[in-house]
Amino acid sequence: MDKMSRSERIGVMTKILLDQPNQIYTLNYFSELFGVAKSTISDDVMLLRRALDTFNLGTLETVVGAAGGVKYIPRPGGSRISDFIMMLCDRLSEPQRILPGGFLYMTDLLFMPHVAERVGEIMANKFYDTNPDFVITVETKGIPIALMTGKALNCPVVIARRDSQVTEGSVVTINYVSASSKRIRTMSLARRAVRQGQRALIIDDFMKGGGTAKGMIDLLGEFGVDIAGVGVMIATQQPEEKMVENYAALIELKQVDENSRKVVLEPAAWVFNE
Amino acid sequence: MDKMSRSERIGVMTKILLDQPNQIYTLNYFSELFGVAKSTISDDVMLLRRALDTFNLGTLETVVGAAGGVKYIPRPGGSRISDFIMMLCDRLSEPQRILPGGFLYMTDLLFMPHVAERVGEIMANKFYDTNPDFVITVETKGIPIALMTGKALNCPVVIARRDSQVTEGSVVTINYVSASSKRIRTMSLARRAVRQGQRALIIDDFMKGGGTAKGMIDLLGEFGVDIAGVGVMIATQQPEEKMVENYAALIELKQVDENSRKVVLEPAAWVFNE
Repeated sequence: MDKMSRSERIGVMTKILLDQPNQIYTLNYFSELFGVAKSTISDDVMLLRRALDTFNLGTLETVVGAAGGVKYIPRPGGSRISDFIMMLCDRLSEPQRILPGGFLYMTDLLFMPHVAERVGEIMANKFYDTNPDFVITVETKGIPIALMTGKALNCPVVIARRDSQVTEGSVVTINYVSASSKRIRTMSLARRAVRQGQRALIIDDFMKGGGTAKGMIDLLGEFGVDIAGVGVMIATQQPEEKMVENYAALIELKQVDENSRKVVLEPAAWVFNE
Repeated sequence: MDKMSRSERIGVMTKILLDQPNQIYTLNYFSELFGVAKSTISDDVMLLRRALDTFNLGTLETVVGAAGGVKYIPRPGGSRISDFIMMLCDRLSEPQRILPGGFLYMTDLLFMPHVAERVGEIMANKFYDTNPDFVITVETKGIPIALMTGKALNCPVVIARRDSQVTEGSVVTINYVSASSKRIRTMSLARRAVRQGQRALIIDDFMKGGGTAKGMIDLLGEFGVDIAGVGVMIATQQPEEKMVENYAALIELKQVDENSRKVVLEPAAWVFNE
């Protein structure tokens, strides 16, 4: 292979680093890949970092020490987060999303890969410093954003199931009370999925009373797993008091009025300060 | 903003193009973003394409005409696909994955974001020319690879549910027979999720008798949706005759022996020819 130009190296480096956010690549790795000196790679990294920073497209973090190197942190900057959340609010307030019973249809947005990926990046950003070992959600609608949060944090994703499944091996099952419907529901987690002492980041698409999040916390408690944080895409304004104390929501749902066909949502205040 | 160097432009361009595969960006877009001539952007694109090609990291496709521009196609080349599939086979054949009843625990791998993303890219690649409008799977374990296939193809993902959910609005429900367990199961699809005349790519994690895939085909038939293709990560060797005729599997599962603790899997022949 001919020696590549700096531009070519940076294209390839960007692809490799961005493919697996939060994964450390040593300067040696790139030095050997491209057949150039480590100091040259070091200059490449500085240049790429500056370019990404200029457009608020995330950042490169240099990690020193024996296991050192460089990693990509998807940290949308400037008004990227708030612009995106406001766009989501716009889409979610479309009157045709109102379902009988005052529910809001949002599955289409949750399962658009690039929407899920942006939400995942914002969640990862928010909880980056809490250092979770895995991301957990309960099936089904929260899975895309949980998966993309896991991607951005470079950690595995674990799923609590509604029913116990033969393909999960032995499971621990709990009953919990849905705060909004007051019904008893069930949640299972495969015994082999997590280990005692790990830290879990709970991610879900929607929180009303917080019963499901509370259920996940209780279920993880059975495994001796600590909670790094709870993040939801949308939380309803009512009831104000949720069954979990600390959580971060991206969007607050203030009102869904079936008669006037009106949906009122607002970005959470913190998204403007990121 | 100071004018950026070619290297900096290429870093930013790589990030933007790779973030949304299969999405066309005009040369004008980049020309305005960077404040340089279109011919300069054109040179940048050629350079980046060559660099990505050199490392088998996918390719840039130039689209001509009024809606023309450039897009990134995640097309892993060289031995990247077969190496990855063989690594998966190795991981899946770990004896501790054998569950009572001869089932194989694979949820952990399916929900590792970077594993799901590679599988999704390979699926997208395989079905790229079938031009699907959306990717569909039935909850739950197939969701990560379906989502990542949708990401690579730049199309939405649609989920068939096991139960009808109030948050999906009106749904069409079918009963179908699971080929392996001979049990009657149920599958629902929101009426607003798809439109007549669209083309669906069915993605799932596992196929034994093919009853679930057949169920999805029948369900989509109720909507007047055409089938672009069926892709599964793993298909069992037995029964040889599946309930669907055309499908592509990445891996063939030949044997799970509970007594001898032996799992035998093999990459499908076609993965060596990609």
